[in-house]
Amino acid sequence: MFDYRLVAVCPHTGARAGELVTPHGVIETPVFMPVGTQATVKAMTPEELVELGAQIILSNTYHLYLRPGADLVAEAGGLHRFMRWQGPILTDSGGFQVFSLSALRQISDEGVTFRSHRDGSSHFMTPELSVAVQEKLGGDIAMCFDECVPWPTTAEEADRAVSRTTAWARRCLEAHGREDQALFAIVQGSVFEPLRLRSASELIELDFPGYAIGGLSVGESHDAMYRILDVLNPVLPRHKPRYLMGVGFPTNLVEGIARGVDMFDCVLPSRNGRNGTLFTSSGRMNIKGSRFERDFGPLDEACDCYVCRNYSRAYVRHLHRSGEILGARLCTWHNLHFLVHLVRKARKAIIDGSFPDFRRRFLEHFMEGAYLT
Amino acid sequence: MFDYRLVAVCPHTGARAGELVTPHGVIETPVFMPVGTQATVKAMTPEELVELGAQIILSNTYHLYLRPGADLVAEAGGLHRFMRWQGPILTDSGGFQVFSLSALRQISDEGVTFRSHRDGSSHFMTPELSVAVQEKLGGDIAMCFDECVPWPTTAEEADRAVSRTTAWARRCLEAHGREDQALFAIVQGSVFEPLRLRSASELIELDFPGYAIGGLSVGESHDAMYRILDVLNPVLPRHKPRYLMGVGFPTNLVEGIARGVDMFDCVLPSRNGRNGTLFTSSGRMNIKGSRFERDFGPLDEACDCYVCRNYSRAYVRHLHRSGEILGARLCTWHNLHFLVHLVRKARKAIIDGSFPDFRRRFLEHFMEGAYLT
Repeated sequence: MFDYRLVAVCPHTGARAGELVTPHGVIETPVFMPVGTQATVKAMTPEELVELGAQIILSNTYHLYLRPGADLVAEAGGLHRFMRWQGPILTDSGGFQVFSLSALRQISDEGVTFRSHRDGSSHFMTPELSVAVQEKLGGDIAMCFDECVPWPTTAEEADRAVSRTTAWARRCLEAHGREDQALFAIVQGSVFEPLRLRSASELIELDFPGYAIGGLSVGESHDAMYRILDVLNPVLPRHKPRYLMGVGFPTNLVEGIARGVDMFDCVLPSRNGRNGTLFTSSGRMNIKGSRFERDFGPLDEACDCYVCRNYSRAYVRHLHRSGEILGARLCTWHNLHFLVHLVRKARKAIIDGSFPDFRRRFLEHFMEGAYLT
Repeated sequence: MFDYRLVAVCPHTGARAGELVTPHGVIETPVFMPVGTQATVKAMTPEELVELGAQIILSNTYHLYLRPGADLVAEAGGLHRFMRWQGPILTDSGGFQVFSLSALRQISDEGVTFRSHRDGSSHFMTPELSVAVQEKLGGDIAMCFDECVPWPTTAEEADRAVSRTTAWARRCLEAHGREDQALFAIVQGSVFEPLRLRSASELIELDFPGYAIGGLSVGESHDAMYRILDVLNPVLPRHKPRYLMGVGFPTNLVEGIARGVDMFDCVLPSRNGRNGTLFTSSGRMNIKGSRFERDFGPLDEACDCYVCRNYSRAYVRHLHRSGEILGARLCTWHNLHFLVHLVRKARKAIIDGSFPDFRRRFLEHFMEGAYLT
């Protein structure tokens, strides 16, 4: 029911093209996964996600556990039916949100007591509960409950978190029973190479069908992120998918792919889109800028998405300045299309044998952009 | 370029079915016009409006005059191109908003000095400026700049406003030059029958291609509204379209049609939709209610819109409780579909000769609804 097949490997970098088989379809990797935190990719319908080329989406266990609750989603027939997304779904474990969003009350080897960021209600999350919730949600891929340390952190704290993450991964594996759901482990260890290697080695021993790299893109430099990816690339099992969590800035995607990453997710394209910030082939820009007031050209000349084919910068600017929902919709749409297709183009280049060229040209062009921040 | 043809008349009521020919297509009347205040029907794309059956939309001169400005819209090629709506557009005159939204500074026979509700900037609106702005926007139908008195008002005030509305209508007619744009007059007179009759008679003398009824649905009772419609129905020219401004509650639409109205507009379906309040065949309901928590049926069993075919009450409730844009989108979509198709069904009944039956059954069923407010 699950399989990962290598289709092509770049001879000059770590880039890989593959196919990830799931119960809801085959995913061509590398892949960018739009985030549907509350059982909806903000502002988008499932049809629109299909139209822009999304293959798999991510949803958040922490949020769905709090509202509407996993039992209700299960009653609706699972997350696919509840939100009408027919492709594969990955659910995170809730670990990241428990550690970053909620008021943390107590962490022990057993689990985490936390207060909801919404209503202050108290909850006790354990590896077993996270798995049970994810089984009820019924995503194609579930994630182990891990301990996410903030950045910066000490080597001692990161070391303790690695040990706990391994112990919890073992408990998740034992608790997990759904055969139509793959359970991925999450490598932790902050920016400390020896800890990352220990974390990877302990988890690989447990033989998961896929491995995520967590705890990056949390404030450390891009160089630190790339260094960790370089360390893990030769170590992670070649015939299993690798997922870099929470990373979505265009240059990071291309550099991640060059370091063997197969899967990405990030709220950036939708969050930026709602705010009028756009990714384009020549950098990042905010459509509210006065220089777009009478600009009747498309958002991105090089883009063929629904928005760029049909709407002008002047109109989209007007929508954003007027606080119109359609402005948020159109910019979210374009940004998701941009990232999904950036990764698709990278895949094509890997298969064509031209990935190093693609990487160089994309970075040059994107960095050239007058609006890059 | 403009024409109104009567297709069928109900022998028992004042209901009429017709065809209104415009440069951007033939409108089958009676018709409900979704409102696109700021050059966008809130939360909807043009394609979605076509899919739900919208034939013509309305946009607001007051808002577009203030932002992005009529010159910019003209530079974009007019409102149709700016917002990508290929069907007919009606622009109001700005009169209603000047009198209801802005800080009014001074009204004279010449025009109105007002302050923008947004930034407090000072403006002087005259009949000639309203026409000039509407010509730049380039809608298929423009409206005369009128004086809208609040409700309740005295007969003396309403009388003065009728006189001024007639004088301004004459100036609008003189100022108006676009041959591809029809200019409609607006009958005022509040709830006073003699004033309504005087207003209508003075405007009919000026021979406009269409007549609107303004100043209703502003706080007066439904009975008062119906009484005014009953008085105007035999007086307004039979072979010209009649437009009841700002009315969109389902029962009012059906009763307006029974009294000879051909065109309606209202922000109610979209404003209610964003708030989770839905029109259904059995009344009005708010989807956020806890009774819908585990209700996996459609919003309205009797509806075949995109939303009712695809989404459950439980899911739409979850979206609204979570403040998700998709919730606003889906409820706006359903409400617009509901009103557009309610009026379409009325038209079919008029042509079939079954309008009195249709009217009785709709009102009974809608009033029966447990959720009616």
